[in-house]
Amino acid sequence: MKRFRTRLTAVLFILALAFPLLADEGLWPFNMVPRDYLKAKYNFEATPEWLKHLQLSSLRLGGASASFISPEGLVLTNHHVGQGAVQNLSTKDRDLMKTGFYARTRVEELKCPGMEFSILQEIEDVTARVQAAEKPGMTAAEAGEARDKFIAGLEKDVADKTGLRGTVVTLYSGGLFHLYRYKVYTDVRLVFAPEYLIAFFGGDPDNFTYPRYDLDITLFRVYDNDKPLQTVDYLKWSASGAKDGELTFVSGHPGSTGRLNTMSQLEFLRDVSYPFNIANLQRRRALCQEFAKKGEEEKRIALRSLFGIENSLKAITGYQSGLLDPKLMAKKAAEEKSFREALAKDPALGKEFGTAWDEIAAAEKAYASFFVPYSFFERGTGFNTMYFGAARNLVRLAMEKGKPNAERLREYRDANMASLKRNLLSPSPIYDEFEVVKLADSLAQLKENLRDMPEVKWILNGRTPEETAKALIAGTKLKDLDVRKKYMDGGLEDIYLSTDPMIKLVLLIDPVSRGLRLRNEREVGSIETRNGALIARAMFKLKGTSVPPDATGTLRLSFGPVKGYTENGKKTPFETTYAGLYAKSTAHGNKDPYELPASFISRKSFLNMSVPLNFVTTGDSIGGNSGSPVVNRKGEIVGVLFDGNIQSLPCNFVYTDDVARSVMVHSQGIIEALLKIYQAKPLVDEILGKK
Amino acid sequence: MKRFRTRLTAVLFILALAFPLLADEGLWPFNMVPRDYLKAKYNFEATPEWLKHLQLSSLRLGGASASFISPEGLVLTNHHVGQGAVQNLSTKDRDLMKTGFYARTRVEELKCPGMEFSILQEIEDVTARVQAAEKPGMTAAEAGEARDKFIAGLEKDVADKTGLRGTVVTLYSGGLFHLYRYKVYTDVRLVFAPEYLIAFFGGDPDNFTYPRYDLDITLFRVYDNDKPLQTVDYLKWSASGAKDGELTFVSGHPGSTGRLNTMSQLEFLRDVSYPFNIANLQRRRALCQEFAKKGEEEKRIALRSLFGIENSLKAITGYQSGLLDPKLMAKKAAEEKSFREALAKDPALGKEFGTAWDEIAAAEKAYASFFVPYSFFERGTGFNTMYFGAARNLVRLAMEKGKPNAERLREYRDANMASLKRNLLSPSPIYDEFEVVKLADSLAQLKENLRDMPEVKWILNGRTPEETAKALIAGTKLKDLDVRKKYMDGGLEDIYLSTDPMIKLVLLIDPVSRGLRLRNEREVGSIETRNGALIARAMFKLKGTSVPPDATGTLRLSFGPVKGYTENGKKTPFETTYAGLYAKSTAHGNKDPYELPASFISRKSFLNMSVPLNFVTTGDSIGGNSGSPVVNRKGEIVGVLFDGNIQSLPCNFVYTDDVARSVMVHSQGIIEALLKIYQAKPLVDEILGKK
Repeated sequence: MKRFRTRLTAVLFILALAFPLLADEGLWPFNMVPRDYLKAKYNFEATPEWLKHLQLSSLRLGGASASFISPEGLVLTNHHVGQGAVQNLSTKDRDLMKTGFYARTRVEELKCPGMEFSILQEIEDVTARVQAAEKPGMTAAEAGEARDKFIAGLEKDVADKTGLRGTVVTLYSGGLFHLYRYKVYTDVRLVFAPEYLIAFFGGDPDNFTYPRYDLDITLFRVYDNDKPLQTVDYLKWSASGAKDGELTFVSGHPGSTGRLNTMSQLEFLRDVSYPFNIANLQRRRALCQEFAKKGEEEKRIALRSLFGIENSLKAITGYQSGLLDPKLMAKKAAEEKSFREALAKDPALGKEFGTAWDEIAAAEKAYASFFVPYSFFERGTGFNTMYFGAARNLVRLAMEKGKPNAERLREYRDANMASLKRNLLSPSPIYDEFEVVKLADSLAQLKENLRDMPEVKWILNGRTPEETAKALIAGTKLKDLDVRKKYMDGGLEDIYLSTDPMIKLVLLIDPVSRGLRLRNEREVGSIETRNGALIARAMFKLKGTSVPPDATGTLRLSFGPVKGYTENGKKTPFETTYAGLYAKSTAHGNKDPYELPASFISRKSFLNMSVPLNFVTTGDSIGGNSGSPVVNRKGEIVGVLFDGNIQSLPCNFVYTDDVARSVMVHSQGIIEALLKIYQAKPLVDEILGKK
Repeated sequence: MKRFRTRLTAVLFILALAFPLLADEGLWPFNMVPRDYLKAKYNFEATPEWLKHLQLSSLRLGGASASFISPEGLVLTNHHVGQGAVQNLSTKDRDLMKTGFYARTRVEELKCPGMEFSILQEIEDVTARVQAAEKPGMTAAEAGEARDKFIAGLEKDVADKTGLRGTVVTLYSGGLFHLYRYKVYTDVRLVFAPEYLIAFFGGDPDNFTYPRYDLDITLFRVYDNDKPLQTVDYLKWSASGAKDGELTFVSGHPGSTGRLNTMSQLEFLRDVSYPFNIANLQRRRALCQEFAKKGEEEKRIALRSLFGIENSLKAITGYQSGLLDPKLMAKKAAEEKSFREALAKDPALGKEFGTAWDEIAAAEKAYASFFVPYSFFERGTGFNTMYFGAARNLVRLAMEKGKPNAERLREYRDANMASLKRNLLSPSPIYDEFEVVKLADSLAQLKENLRDMPEVKWILNGRTPEETAKALIAGTKLKDLDVRKKYMDGGLEDIYLSTDPMIKLVLLIDPVSRGLRLRNEREVGSIETRNGALIARAMFKLKGTSVPPDATGTLRLSFGPVKGYTENGKKTPFETTYAGLYAKSTAHGNKDPYELPASFISRKSFLNMSVPLNFVTTGDSIGGNSGSPVVNRKGEIVGVLFDGNIQSLPCNFVYTDDVARSVMVHSQGIIEALLKIYQAKPLVDEILGKK
């Protein structure tokens, strides 16, 4: 701590009151890890080698995390992270969600089409070059576009020169720009998944809670050239697992946090964005629940969507609880106030940075004025069907691919093209009956909210939302992957002349949709970036980069000890055991969602009941960290993160470690289940390096 | 003639039967004028100086022609060519069409917004460079796009380097590419226009006929820096005017001919394009006539459209009469057959060129399959209102201007941008009542023809065409030039978020519209160009460039003697006189369209009745030549072309000089009217160089 303190000047001393001192806060980019702090507080040397090995062993898939745990490409992540793949491999007659899956031999491992893992290879600071793209006198929107073009060029260069995937990551709202280079693997196969009942024991009621008893894991294997990937960068298994008080590290891909948001940004979330999203998710949850009542098959189908909906709903409700907490908001307001006052004391600083907050506030106000149509059209809230996503990608791909790389919508640039195409051709099952129900309801929502927009009239064309949805789903041919491929490889001509009603729907709304996107970029995004970067520069002047950047869905390291907590006098232990699992199931009459799968009932007697199943640490995390490896000082796996408790959700805006906790599956609990319940000795041998 | 003959080889001798020898056929580009032929047949030396002076004195406006006739920028053209400007300057209370107009002093000359004259400065042969843009192995569509991009670059270069407007002209369907550089003047003022009654004496019944008695002239003046343009390149007035048998030259901008069309192209016109266009024009004529019956003001408004409709209708009907003439088609078929047989005799030539005709035939067949929707959407037949044109230009301008110049739709490239913008902001009066009638009827046509297309359903959205038209016209703000300017200067965002119903209509149909345009370019245009160029190369091999290229709306020289004709034993004299004018009016009871204006009645006695009013020559011409100066060997004005007789219309496909004639206003008739009827002595002095 002392070394940090000695850097502070007089002004900074005032600010030290505004910015709380670090504690163990921080989702740190791997090139910004506070090694001094770790050394000072925990006497831990985070050597470059230690960090690099952990970095190269950490994987990203979609918006979540995973890690290599064997030299033969074995990957550990959460069941709820790999769930899409498990569901895609399921059919009416083979429901892997229900039965679980274990490939006893390599040949039994199941290919997961469309899945890809990427591994961060290198980080390069390109801040100066990116900022130089912005010329004096440019408006925020022009500057945003100039930066964006320059960034597109950098990213394309990476692909052209190295075959890696390049992504420029914007830190501190544009205070820093770092170029990330990823290696991408696309041959992924399912090795092991437990039954849904044990992976998600406690279901939605227990989601975001602790104590917990979930075996929320799935194992994949990465193949390269049709052989298991050989890698030296994998994480060894800890013999003992996590112990109380032990320092642990989480290496994963937290999605986003808003700790450096201004008050106006927080208020926008609280008053506009979250209320809309919560109401929308509630409506979709009810729809899925209703559909699930129709029968077993319908239930299986609805479950695919339901988990994600409930998970998001609970998370956003948790974030919102923070913003609705007057104490938290008062704290934020005070911090902002004292920061601005500190700046104002120095006329030069005040002039350079002083208006940033007001400009952001104006942008949020503008955003609020078109947030609803923006959500319904550009974010697709009004068109809740998988077909819409496919159709939009096909239409925009055809429109964008003819443009110079840097001028395309970001998702259609060369750097993202391979993924996009793979995704378009991945054979996810689509159930038309369910798609009709979802689309009809979202069209009804669209009508309720925006009935006077001509586009809404055109879409409905005098029909009910249900009739419209039925006609769209019945008419589209986009389930057929050959049809998709034809559009994908074809030209804009094929799109323009298509008679597919889903393609025509996308074309119909694309102008208004793009218009709203442009408004968002120009009137909101570019203003937030320009002024966010100003605020960041002010912060750098006053505090250096000792304040960690907000999460951006990219690889981050966080840390903290294994630690229980006390709330309202009630002690919550640092870990749970198998004994607790069975006790909780019994207490709830062994009924859904506390029902145990057959395997855990029939083989109960083989289990050592005192083996830990889940545990908690103070390590910083947020949505996207699911599947992150949790390692000890030696870099060995002691668990896999799968959740945060409900008290951790407001950490989206203010990190605390009183009662907020990250929740992990314990490494020993995993081995115990694999051996005793699933009799997967070869797999355990591979994990423990005994093979 | 001999020199031409001696070039022919044995093969060519056969072809000489297929390709009729030249006669006076030919709309010759100024860099391809057959000087040897003129020397041989007429003992006329078309010196480079003579040609250059005529070229620089010739003007283009829109799709028509004009010339400088004084050193102070005075311009002579037809009344029907300048009619739009005269109508734009008219109001309910000042109908210049009815009253005519004469500015006795410079300050009275009336500015004509949106009007522009261009003057061809130079021609450069860029064939080799353009053809080099096409790489081996490219499909016709790819080659077309590659050429198009290269051409866009050439054209942009002209603007960037010289400030001139560059246009690459495709001759012989791609056999030759010539880069034209134009100087453009945009400050144009009205000096003199006679009354509509005398300008268009005989009206539609006499249009495309001869003998004729029309004072079809209007005089403008070009200003530069707010002063009359000083120019040395203007045409002096002939003292004597055109005499029987005298060689004359026509220098103007004939729009298009199809003399080198293949049989399949002619059949497409005959069986698909012309029948559609004729039926459409008939319907529009009836609509205008009906509207005109509502009252005097309505008649004035309808007249604006009616002249153009009737003129096109008569022209196309005339062209079609040629194609429906079995003799003409048999002649065309025989020519094509013998040309192909001549090629087939040489296996190398046969292989290189032999399939061109069949490929064009396949393209025409494809075109026929989508010609109707192409016309209704991309050519705008379904949206017959001035607002649609403005809205489409605004929408596409916003979409295209963000693209690299070469990738834009041709009409939105830099070379055309200034004109386009001027046009968008020109204050042509719009009469909403008339616009509703036109739009409603064209929407009804759209519905009759394409009711099953989703776009048609979206547009109508359950309403009648009339209700739809009313809503569109009532809702649009595009009459307001400030509104147009806002869109013009704004971004795609403004377009995408516009609530203007006309903008939204354009956005709605733009995908299908562009799709049809793309199909036309790829499946028809590029095939015609590639194979047309092949046929042209074959022709060059066999005949050099002694066969003139088809008209392309660019400056051409044609020639032929002043000459009457005899048909079915009936002799038609080479010229008409004022005496004939009065006789014809009397014969028709002086009733519309043979009614004379008050001026010609009250000042009749001042006229010399033997002065010639109109005359004919065998000179080649076609629509677009209207307003062309007609000059004698000394390059002096002897008349201004304003029509062809009905027998000349099939010359679109086969030139003949038996009875086909170009019809001119006589230079002496012009002076006589200006002096005696309009008492415009200062103007006559300027024209005769007496000032």
